[in-house]
Amino acid sequence: MEKTGIFAGNGHVRDIVRLALSEDIGTGDVTTAFVVPAGMRASGRIVAKQAGVVAGLPVVRMVFAELDPAITFRNLVEDGQAVQPGQVVAELEGPAAPLLTGERAALNFLMHMSGIATGARAFAARLEGTGARLLDTRKTTPGNRVLEKYAVQAGGAFNHRMNLAGGVLIKNNHIAVCGGVRAAVLAASAKSPVTLKIEIEVRTLDEAVEAAQAGADMLLLDHMTPSMAREVRDRVGGSILLEVSGNMTPDKAASYADCGVDFVSAGVVTYGAGWLDFSMYLDLEGGAQNAG
Amino acid sequence: MEKTGIFAGNGHVRDIVRLALSEDIGTGDVTTAFVVPAGMRASGRIVAKQAGVVAGLPVVRMVFAELDPAITFRNLVEDGQAVQPGQVVAELEGPAAPLLTGERAALNFLMHMSGIATGARAFAARLEGTGARLLDTRKTTPGNRVLEKYAVQAGGAFNHRMNLAGGVLIKNNHIAVCGGVRAAVLAASAKSPVTLKIEIEVRTLDEAVEAAQAGADMLLLDHMTPSMAREVRDRVGGSILLEVSGNMTPDKAASYADCGVDFVSAGVVTYGAGWLDFSMYLDLEGGAQNAG
Amino acid sequence: MEKTGIFAGNGHVRDIVRLALSEDIGTGDVTTAFVVPAGMRASGRIVAKQAGVVAGLPVVRMVFAELDPAITFRNLVEDGQAVQPGQVVAELEGPAAPLLTGERAALNFLMHMSGIATGARAFAARLEGTGARLLDTRKTTPGNRVLEKYAVQAGGAFNHRMNLAGGVLIKNNHIAVCGGVRAAVLAASAKSPVTLKIEIEVRTLDEAVEAAQAGADMLLLDHMTPSMAREVRDRVGGSILLEVSGNMTPDKAASYADCGVDFVSAGVVTYGAGWLDFSMYLDLEGGAQNAG
Amino acid sequence: MEKTGIFAGNGHVRDIVRLALSEDIGTGDVTTAFVVPAGMRASGRIVAKQAGVVAGLPVVRMVFAELDPAITFRNLVEDGQAVQPGQVVAELEGPAAPLLTGERAALNFLMHMSGIATGARAFAARLEGTGARLLDTRKTTPGNRVLEKYAVQAGGAFNHRMNLAGGVLIKNNHIAVCGGVRAAVLAASAKSPVTLKIEIEVRTLDEAVEAAQAGADMLLLDHMTPSMAREVRDRVGGSILLEVSGNMTPDKAASYADCGVDFVSAGVVTYGAGWLDFSMYLDLEGGAQNAG
Amino acid sequence: MEKTGIFAGNGHVRDIVRLALSEDIGTGDVTTAFVVPAGMRASGRIVAKQAGVVAGLPVVRMVFAELDPAITFRNLVEDGQAVQPGQVVAELEGPAAPLLTGERAALNFLMHMSGIATGARAFAARLEGTGARLLDTRKTTPGNRVLEKYAVQAGGAFNHRMNLAGGVLIKNNHIAVCGGVRAAVLAASAKSPVTLKIEIEVRTLDEAVEAAQAGADMLLLDHMTPSMAREVRDRVGGSILLEVSGNMTPDKAASYADCGVDFVSAGVVTYGAGWLDFSMYLDLEGGAQNAG
Amino acid sequence: MEKTGIFAGNGHVRDIVRLALSEDIGTGDVTTAFVVPAGMRASGRIVAKQAGVVAGLPVVRMVFAELDPAITFRNLVEDGQAVQPGQVVAELEGPAAPLLTGERAALNFLMHMSGIATGARAFAARLEGTGARLLDTRKTTPGNRVLEKYAVQAGGAFNHRMNLAGGVLIKNNHIAVCGGVRAAVLAASAKSPVTLKIEIEVRTLDEAVEAAQAGADMLLLDHMTPSMAREVRDRVGGSILLEVSGNMTPDKAASYADCGVDFVSAGVVTYGAGWLDFSMYLDLEGGAQNAG
Repeated sequence: MEKTGIFAGNGHVRDIVRLALSEDIGTGDVTTAFVVPAGMRASGRIVAKQAGVVAGLPVVRMVFAELDPAITFRNLVEDGQAVQPGQVVAELEGPAAPLLTGERAALNFLMHMSGIATGARAFAARLEGTGARLLDTRKTTPGNRVLEKYAVQAGGAFNHRMNLAGGVLIKNNHIAVCGGVRAAVLAASAKSPVTLKIEIEVRTLDEAVEAAQAGADMLLLDHMTPSMAREVRDRVGGSILLEVSGNMTPDKAASYADCGVDFVSAGVVTYGAGWLDFSMYLDLEGGAQNAG
Repeated sequence: MEKTGIFAGNGHVRDIVRLALSEDIGTGDVTTAFVVPAGMRASGRIVAKQAGVVAGLPVVRMVFAELDPAITFRNLVEDGQAVQPGQVVAELEGPAAPLLTGERAALNFLMHMSGIATGARAFAARLEGTGARLLDTRKTTPGNRVLEKYAVQAGGAFNHRMNLAGGVLIKNNHIAVCGGVRAAVLAASAKSPVTLKIEIEVRTLDEAVEAAQAGADMLLLDHMTPSMAREVRDRVGGSILLEVSGNMTPDKAASYADCGVDFVSAGVVTYGAGWLDFSMYLDLEGGAQNAG
Repeated sequence: MEKTGIFAGNGHVRDIVRLALSEDIGTGDVTTAFVVPAGMRASGRIVAKQAGVVAGLPVVRMVFAELDPAITFRNLVEDGQAVQPGQVVAELEGPAAPLLTGERAALNFLMHMSGIATGARAFAARLEGTGARLLDTRKTTPGNRVLEKYAVQAGGAFNHRMNLAGGVLIKNNHIAVCGGVRAAVLAASAKSPVTLKIEIEVRTLDEAVEAAQAGADMLLLDHMTPSMAREVRDRVGGSILLEVSGNMTPDKAASYADCGVDFVSAGVVTYGAGWLDFSMYLDLEGGAQNAG
Repeated sequence: MEKTGIFAGNGHVRDIVRLALSEDIGTGDVTTAFVVPAGMRASGRIVAKQAGVVAGLPVVRMVFAELDPAITFRNLVEDGQAVQPGQVVAELEGPAAPLLTGERAALNFLMHMSGIATGARAFAARLEGTGARLLDTRKTTPGNRVLEKYAVQAGGAFNHRMNLAGGVLIKNNHIAVCGGVRAAVLAASAKSPVTLKIEIEVRTLDEAVEAAQAGADMLLLDHMTPSMAREVRDRVGGSILLEVSGNMTPDKAASYADCGVDFVSAGVVTYGAGWLDFSMYLDLEGGAQNAG
Repeated sequence: MEKTGIFAGNGHVRDIVRLALSEDIGTGDVTTAFVVPAGMRASGRIVAKQAGVVAGLPVVRMVFAELDPAITFRNLVEDGQAVQPGQVVAELEGPAAPLLTGERAALNFLMHMSGIATGARAFAARLEGTGARLLDTRKTTPGNRVLEKYAVQAGGAFNHRMNLAGGVLIKNNHIAVCGGVRAAVLAASAKSPVTLKIEIEVRTLDEAVEAAQAGADMLLLDHMTPSMAREVRDRVGGSILLEVSGNMTPDKAASYADCGVDFVSAGVVTYGAGWLDFSMYLDLEGGAQNAG
Repeated sequence: MEKTGIFAGNGHVRDIVRLALSEDIGTGDVTTAFVVPAGMRASGRIVAKQAGVVAGLPVVRMVFAELDPAITFRNLVEDGQAVQPGQVVAELEGPAAPLLTGERAALNFLMHMSGIATGARAFAARLEGTGARLLDTRKTTPGNRVLEKYAVQAGGAFNHRMNLAGGVLIKNNHIAVCGGVRAAVLAASAKSPVTLKIEIEVRTLDEAVEAAQAGADMLLLDHMTPSMAREVRDRVGGSILLEVSGNMTPDKAASYADCGVDFVSAGVVTYGAGWLDFSMYLDLEGGAQNAG
């Protein structure tokens, strides 16, 4: 059974999959161990219970491969696809015991990630037709960063930096340390890996101009009004990328998009998402029941 | 600096703290590394931006202790306490660089856990005065099981089993394997660690009676109507604990509580919780700014 | 080759298997590396040298699977089965080098666990026909908890809590902290996961009664005489489970069983067990020798 | 608190300490968490209950340092010292909760290792006055190799190779692969790290001579009779070290020692040792009770 | 003792430090264990034996902190500083045993990293006064990526992407997959985190123009002649960053720099560096000797 | 796909392979993820670009097996074999994405190790026909100890101790602690595992004689002149092994060899080696390009 696919060699994903299993299995699944015969086999179906966008099927595959390489997994849809209630998204076959043991851990990944993808798609839909793209932030659930940002993509939105190594973002404290916008941009440019863009948070039009002239690649307009954002766009847009952020809602995002900014970022896309409901049904040598 | 407190020796908590830091720091925080001077010190305050119940301060302490043992941390409130917007919940002091680097990871824990505690308290309030207690489930975010269940407690609700080793719960598939309720209870009782209660999912009054007679300690009444639950209570209650579950809302929970069940369980307490907003403010040798 | 079976996803078992290999292999098996040709294959048999109860064959499988997935393993008996001297319990086939390298680590697991199973069966035999069951304790060899308790089961005895998360056990220090038996039981009941039984150590009949009335599920009668145990049984037995412990021997256990207690626990079942002797014989492309 | 001492930087010891804690704490010590107040402090004494040789106090220190660096530990005796029943071997002081939580894991190390040291001393005493030294083997409990061999030393016996990287030991299978004793010694000598001795298992006097002539440093006389061993000694002793092994008892060892061999090895020194009994007593802000 | 400094929270650095110690200590430092008394203390000096640029002192600190937190470490120079033969770069004090045990692992880091810093400075000196900067590559020693790139910086050169997540670099195979330069740039831009620059490898002037028009941020001119590089610069320079690479030497780099490219990258800066010699001298309660 | 071969069960090798992948992949290979279609397959060839001795092919195999077990790997030469420019050393086949992602990590191992093997062979050639063997030291790149020493062997030189557990080596500081050569040898002999040789560093003929009489197995003649070495050889050679070290070059080594010492050790064999150039070429469903 293929173990990894899109997440091949990704240590963060491997670690969270193992952590999810070890925290749920502990010293052993006592119910399954003492109730399910050793040789029994089963086949299963994972079924959507709500309409939404699926994300996380490769992680479900990894959960069961980690538990028992003898389990086979076949996904019927791809991550990013819309599903309807009742739709089968994946089929499994193998020894009954690990299928029962792994069900909850697998569904926790799938429901959490699909919830994010579903929410991201709805939010991003409000920006369609504008030139602005919806971005996520680093407000993600501990240990789930890579998976949540992957789900944002599956939903049709875009990723801001993956972590503190994936982009320079100079915030107010950093500016204060350096004594000003220009000095901060120069300090960061002088040393950072040259493959990373330099972004800086600005609060006024003057700061925006100063940052652009110092060679920043991108501005973070934090809690600016749409009209201020438009003013910045008119002055420095085109030569520099513009991102707005601050307690974003789809409506606010749309109004910023109308101002011509490049990006609207919203932490709520990850931390505010609900779960999308899925169930797993097992056939144990004949009968079909919900394992949930 | 004390490193662990309530989570002393808890490998799951240590692992998720390390994973959260490694996924956010990656090959290094390029902004801080090249902008903040090596010797600079700072002091910080973590401040609530919304009203709610705080949970996660010991984890914030662990995050910063893991980053740099030279950071001191002092909490001004205890987990489980209600806080108001603007209230300072903790103070930190130490080298500026790790305080900036660790801020997001620390707040992600605190906002996520406090969101769960806040939601749990509101939900549990609906059961006050009844004899029923609100329970969580295993529908938790991967890697965060121990912390989310801890937050549920901080909010005033209660924990169902921590994982598959922390209680026997015989579900429909297990019953099917054994050929019946009685056989399943006996199989599990014969072998499970004797310190665990035996719980079984039942769908009818007859099954409830059969389970009680077989020696089960607890029944899971899955998707039963309140009137059915009351019937079960009248027949076997007292001799056996009763739990109801199934797409629970506070209103539904209250109506079940009125039927005299012991426990109402609700996955939404963990997976459906929003985040409670906190900010961290840093004074860098004189100036005060939001590090966020 | 199936990797895990009964221990699928069990992080504790995976960790001790890896630790056992890494501590024995270190920077490499110098003898095998420089003496055994790369392409050589071998087949092997694991043979009992003493009569006893086998336990640990799935771990032997894991050891070799971890070393080299190309090795095939077939067990001829199941854990828990009695074996006679000379009886072949498993056959292996694959590259010669990892078979030689893994032999000692694999046998160390098998001999240690089978020794426990063998001793547990002999001890438990003394309780046959009584209503009492033999329990293990947490006096286990570091890192081997799950495997030793599994071996106790294979031998026909039963498991007390797996660890500090697998049951509430209120000891004298805890009682002292709370100021009494009743207060301690209530404190623990108020907060513990509801799927765990509440057990408390008592030293007198009065304490036993107080604990039962406070709602404890189980009493630990520590170093009580059989006649005191009988008195407790007569007073609270039936409504609460009774466990006796304290430097237990088969003879003492039998005398307690006669008093009608439910459980007799004995740390000696794990820490006092000897090893059951096994050898591994290898055929290296023709010849047969003891690899030991 | 000093964390490591004799085991500084030893990854194997660090791993088994962490594994022992994580397997015993799991998702958390529910009894202590809900019964012991957060701020309570305690002091403790570890007391011998039997006469024997102590080994493992530095590991006890590591267990509590890993749990909570705020705990202080002071040993009153050194590993390798004989103790009497009632003798205090160490004192601890710190937060009450981690002292209670860590007690069992700490004592499991101490009782297991002290049991080995005690047995090794008794066994080695039989060889006093002879020129022979008692050696251990690789028959050790999984994950505990370094600690068990350390305990053997503390008892006054000696270590054979620590693992497969710590010495060349050519056994029958290796000889068969090479086609003879001489060829096997030459193959191993040609490639092994030059800091390791070359030892080879021989069954006859001729093989012993052949091995000595081929340049082996040490012979393993497996299951030879004392008279055969003497014959080998007379022929090649002095130019090469001689070790005898095979179901060794103190009496058999003494008879081999009389034949003038250099080493007698006995797996039973590690796998056959019992535990030496210790208790830990805690004073919780005034009262003194056995925490066990 | 401060444990981390510049590498606070960096999991990669923590891992390689632990791996370096565990591979060198194995089951224990037998010489020190049996020769150095437990309580002996020592003080040490690390001294440069050659002229060069120092890098790695914070890692030396981490090595000894990991071994024993009781060791104090004080650096007399900072990474990036030039040192002369005989110059003391750091002083240590603490228990003698871990100072002896950790010496080799610590010096291996320091000599390797200082060798890279020294070579990078010499190479970079050839580009002084030009507008071009010297970059490293991903040709680094396994497990040492972060440290080697840090040493490159300490030497005065600059970092290309830290890893495959730290920048988009479209190579020939990727172009072939997409069917052309323009398609490849658009595919990567559509999905990559927006904080990363898009770089693409081009072989002709036409490809360079096509890439610039498609919106790439940076071009990799692989094995182009200086005159071709100049042509590309004249055509698209200014609007896009230009990097040249390919078996670079200082002389070749200088000739490219004269063509006005922005970056010259050279794998040899990391993989081709020698070691800079340092020794550690210890005073063991009076005497001073080279511990090496 | 066979995963391990010669390094089966070697935890150090497994760790450095995983660390090399995780440091290079980070949160994911953004270029490949967004440019290469999920189902695309590829075949590859690894080709030597320089003449030299190959070492590391089993590690290349492990890198790709770790990334994706569906990749097949076939080596056309064995480690230790001489290769010519243009010679294909291995072929791979499998999913295109992990082949692209793993290329750099795999080649970094192969080029580094082959560089060491190539250098070792050239150095060792100078000692051919003498009785002396070339040894490596512990001056190895952090985390790469086992692989670098393996490469030394592949090149035809020999290994000194693998780590501090693989041999006793008494240096000047140890001697000073003990108060003399004789005392130090006796202290080490009294306690070390009996399978390890005892080596001691000596600076004079008198010390050499004293060490030999005390029972040392091997002398390290540090920075002695060839004539002093010859004097030592004449006095104690034959009864004890002689090693010379100290800023060794092939010429110096040859002159020592002429004096009749047994071993010449040279750290430069590992730390001074360059890389041997290899490229990987991929055919992506039809086209052939350099993936480099």
